[in-house]
Amino acid sequence: MSKTISGIAASDGIGIAKAYLLVDPDLSFEKQTISDVDAEIKRIHDSFNASTAELQKIKENAKASLGDEEVAVFDAHIAMLSDPDMIKQIEDEIKNDKVNAEQALTDVTTNFAETLAAMKDNKYMQERAADVKDVAKRALSHLLGKELPNLASINSPVIIVAHEITPSDTSQMNKKYIKGMITDMGGRTSHSAIMSRTLEIPAVVGSETATSEISNGDQLILDGLNGVAIVAPSQEEVNDYEQKAKHFAAQRAEWAKLVDAPSVSKDGKEFEIAANIGTPADMDDVHKAGADAVGLFRTEFLYMDSDALPTEDQQFNAYKTVAESMNGKPVVIRTMDIGGDKPLPYLPLPEEMNPFLGYRAIRISLDRQNIFRTQLRALIRASKYGQIRIMFPMIATLDEFRKAKKVFMEEKQNLQKDDPKIGDDIKLGIMIEIPAAAIFADQFAKEVDFFSIGTNDLIQYSFAADRGNDAVSYLYQPLNPALLRLIKHVIDSAHAEGKIAAMCGEMAGDQRALPLLLGMGLDEYSMSASSILRSRSQMRGLTTDECAAIVDEVLAKCQTADEVETLVNSRLSGVTQ
Amino acid sequence: MSKTISGIAASDGIGIAKAYLLVDPDLSFEKQTISDVDAEIKRIHDSFNASTAELQKIKENAKASLGDEEVAVFDAHIAMLSDPDMIKQIEDEIKNDKVNAEQALTDVTTNFAETLAAMKDNKYMQERAADVKDVAKRALSHLLGKELPNLASINSPVIIVAHEITPSDTSQMNKKYIKGMITDMGGRTSHSAIMSRTLEIPAVVGSETATSEISNGDQLILDGLNGVAIVAPSQEEVNDYEQKAKHFAAQRAEWAKLVDAPSVSKDGKEFEIAANIGTPADMDDVHKAGADAVGLFRTEFLYMDSDALPTEDQQFNAYKTVAESMNGKPVVIRTMDIGGDKPLPYLPLPEEMNPFLGYRAIRISLDRQNIFRTQLRALIRASKYGQIRIMFPMIATLDEFRKAKKVFMEEKQNLQKDDPKIGDDIKLGIMIEIPAAAIFADQFAKEVDFFSIGTNDLIQYSFAADRGNDAVSYLYQPLNPALLRLIKHVIDSAHAEGKIAAMCGEMAGDQRALPLLLGMGLDEYSMSASSILRSRSQMRGLTTDECAAIVDEVLAKCQTADEVETLVNSRLSGVTQ
Repeated sequence: MSKTISGIAASDGIGIAKAYLLVDPDLSFEKQTISDVDAEIKRIHDSFNASTAELQKIKENAKASLGDEEVAVFDAHIAMLSDPDMIKQIEDEIKNDKVNAEQALTDVTTNFAETLAAMKDNKYMQERAADVKDVAKRALSHLLGKELPNLASINSPVIIVAHEITPSDTSQMNKKYIKGMITDMGGRTSHSAIMSRTLEIPAVVGSETATSEISNGDQLILDGLNGVAIVAPSQEEVNDYEQKAKHFAAQRAEWAKLVDAPSVSKDGKEFEIAANIGTPADMDDVHKAGADAVGLFRTEFLYMDSDALPTEDQQFNAYKTVAESMNGKPVVIRTMDIGGDKPLPYLPLPEEMNPFLGYRAIRISLDRQNIFRTQLRALIRASKYGQIRIMFPMIATLDEFRKAKKVFMEEKQNLQKDDPKIGDDIKLGIMIEIPAAAIFADQFAKEVDFFSIGTNDLIQYSFAADRGNDAVSYLYQPLNPALLRLIKHVIDSAHAEGKIAAMCGEMAGDQRALPLLLGMGLDEYSMSASSILRSRSQMRGLTTDECAAIVDEVLAKCQTADEVETLVNSRLSGVTQ
Repeated sequence: MSKTISGIAASDGIGIAKAYLLVDPDLSFEKQTISDVDAEIKRIHDSFNASTAELQKIKENAKASLGDEEVAVFDAHIAMLSDPDMIKQIEDEIKNDKVNAEQALTDVTTNFAETLAAMKDNKYMQERAADVKDVAKRALSHLLGKELPNLASINSPVIIVAHEITPSDTSQMNKKYIKGMITDMGGRTSHSAIMSRTLEIPAVVGSETATSEISNGDQLILDGLNGVAIVAPSQEEVNDYEQKAKHFAAQRAEWAKLVDAPSVSKDGKEFEIAANIGTPADMDDVHKAGADAVGLFRTEFLYMDSDALPTEDQQFNAYKTVAESMNGKPVVIRTMDIGGDKPLPYLPLPEEMNPFLGYRAIRISLDRQNIFRTQLRALIRASKYGQIRIMFPMIATLDEFRKAKKVFMEEKQNLQKDDPKIGDDIKLGIMIEIPAAAIFADQFAKEVDFFSIGTNDLIQYSFAADRGNDAVSYLYQPLNPALLRLIKHVIDSAHAEGKIAAMCGEMAGDQRALPLLLGMGLDEYSMSASSILRSRSQMRGLTTDECAAIVDEVLAKCQTADEVETLVNSRLSGVTQ
């Protein structure tokens, strides 16, 4: 009999394949007293050699499907396996204490890892501690003759079943074979969820029990549309879902026809559906999706993937590439949004108890103006190559916006000494992601050129719930009427002053939210490139007046997110289907 | 020549005394090779004996002025100084490595502390790591012949000058001799600031440079009214401030006459000025201040000062004591507001990246209902002994309030089987401290009996700025017009449904804010007992209509907190002086 596991629908699509359990095998062992010291030392060397060979293979596989950067971690692991100090300490413990290889390996590597982890002021060393543990686990698996799961070795279709998917897992995945994924943890904005949408892999997250209820090799249907997985499905269920998958593929093919179509409502009102990007390399996907604009170009990659602060020219080149690639369409570039939770080796930031409420983004930019001025100069220079808009993140007060604008004006005036009028057509806007700024949007609208509502953070702060914390994920409520009221106030405030209201959080690409946002008159919807065509299709089926009426009804009647969802669904069944 | 240091005025009053620098002396030393092993081992024992004797003395002094609980930490330190394992390791290192006592002490204790600190899942062990470091520091000071600052030994009037004041410092202070304090760090809601107001010690915080600009023994004037310290004042300045201090003392004496006076505005409107308390022991101060109510009884002490969850009877007794003591006046008791940043040895909570946005307060109560139900039963039973109101903390959505109310109704019905009508007159309210709840106050007001605006958290979340983080303390803006707008919405919403609007954050006792809150019609002002009489005096000089006009003008004209402060000051100079 088949068994159904429910979770949160995180990425559209249907996958049917065998389960691949991304869960460590049992690596427990007993401490033993040994007599043949040499044999035990040989076992250590054999396990290290086998681990090195395995890592070399993983690295080669990964190199083929992924970039060089993702592969660097394997080099670090391989280097550790030949660390003479670590090997000598393990050999010494075997010789002196007459313990088995498993015990000596575990003692020494635990000690190494704890020493590294104890360097509390040094995040680099703390990450190395995690590497030591990874390497020790691999060597231990060889000592015990167990096999670790190995994403990079997958060469037939599978559905990944995991507790949680980490960025390092992602870097080893070959999209060709991954037909879906289901995790125990996470919500719609967790790393697993965002990444699955970017890679267009059907996904269900937050199932709580997937890894305990599914075994390696189980036949699985993964329904990312409805947030369900079926274990050991009947032939009838497989047939049924193959039909659904076909239907979804057909739908996707229909959407693909909209790549050059305008983003209009059924009643002919024009909007912009834009893409969120992280690096210039994302532009391929942006064009494939026919984005009307880049609504959010995150610039953190310039600071994160580097050993030093990015130079003005490095930044200029990145911004110019994207601006030129959009060929005159708007490109909204957000200034640095770094904070205490993202360590930069060359820019020590204070350790904070609550980094999401800490020293980050515009707060750093206004405080360390040399970093900010370099970025602004690069942006102003790049504005000659396209329609660049500059957006400041984490603005809480008008004072902050005024200070940021003043710095921008000073840098523009400096550059205009050599190049009159450069930067004069740059629009300056702010993220609306802090409740105080949303509440005060009517006053901000008098001074900014545009808003972009960052719903991930706005929801997090409005409900005081860390979006990465599973224990409070129930408070991530994009359809909560208090939030909708706040969003409508922001949009109305922008329009009252003739300014643009955009949104660049996950909510902009959320099918449940789009009718409401359209009803409120949101101008620009910025989302993962993978969601653009579906959203354009959905928008073309909706009528703005009818959506506005739904918004009015929701705000008048609903008190909870569930009530909103029910009401929108019931009204839309009349409007769109 | 005198020198002036500016900071944030944190606690009213003026102190004139010598500076007591609460800063560690230089304890650096050189590693040395020694030949006389026995002499070096004797040095260790001597330093341990001297440390033990010193701690015994500190403990006796502390016992006289403080409670037994505060003294327990010294016993822990004394016990460590006779730990045979630690002593043997130090002796061994001196014998084997021929190093000086300072080096051996430092090596061994550092190793001990790191091993303890590496137990990441065990906060108890991590605190013990801090104890080991403290003990090592004391022994090292004896080895080097340096004196550590020692609050408990102070026996003449001083002004404390410190980087920051910790709770353990506070526990050693004898209020009699502490005439003021000034710190480098902290804002108006830091521990130092709140504690100084509770102890009624004049204080200036956030000076940034006090410890570097003031030397031990310097003559100091501390002006907690204006946030200024004067180092080495002239005789003229001393005379001047002695006058000011006299004037302030006279003012305080005037205030003291209001202990039985009603809390009314100049035009005769009645309000409530209430006290925030942490334990039943605070009731003495509450009565001395003539509080109209207890507006916030925090119940965390029951959970924190204990080795196990508090029983229903333990809780019942605490609630009953306070209810009876208030003799029929309202007592607002907040249910458990524990979270991941406050470790409880018997209730393991997840370590969180952002505990202020995490699993805490009502989120835990709704999830672990056995804890919540025990507390509710104790509260319902205690309601027979006074006018108890129950308040739920960290409510973000109506769903949460409805769930909490349902649990309350169930427990009430259970208790009513034996005691009909028990708990029927309990009012149920919520803290308004999460932006989503403030925005949605009009809907909440239909279902709750009262609001209490928790401004410390409401400001923190509205501006996305941790109030304990100095790097973003500039965003703690009680007078920001966006926040004032939100507070007015909450008060108006309560009144529209005939419900009570109270406030229990720091802002309720803030002299700059009181005219605005009075103008908005806030019903109850709950604050440290030490602020009550001053606030009552201020209120009796203000006219509600004039204050309401100031609120209207502020909300119509002001865009920043500075503009609000300027406008209020200019209008009030006409109203009150």
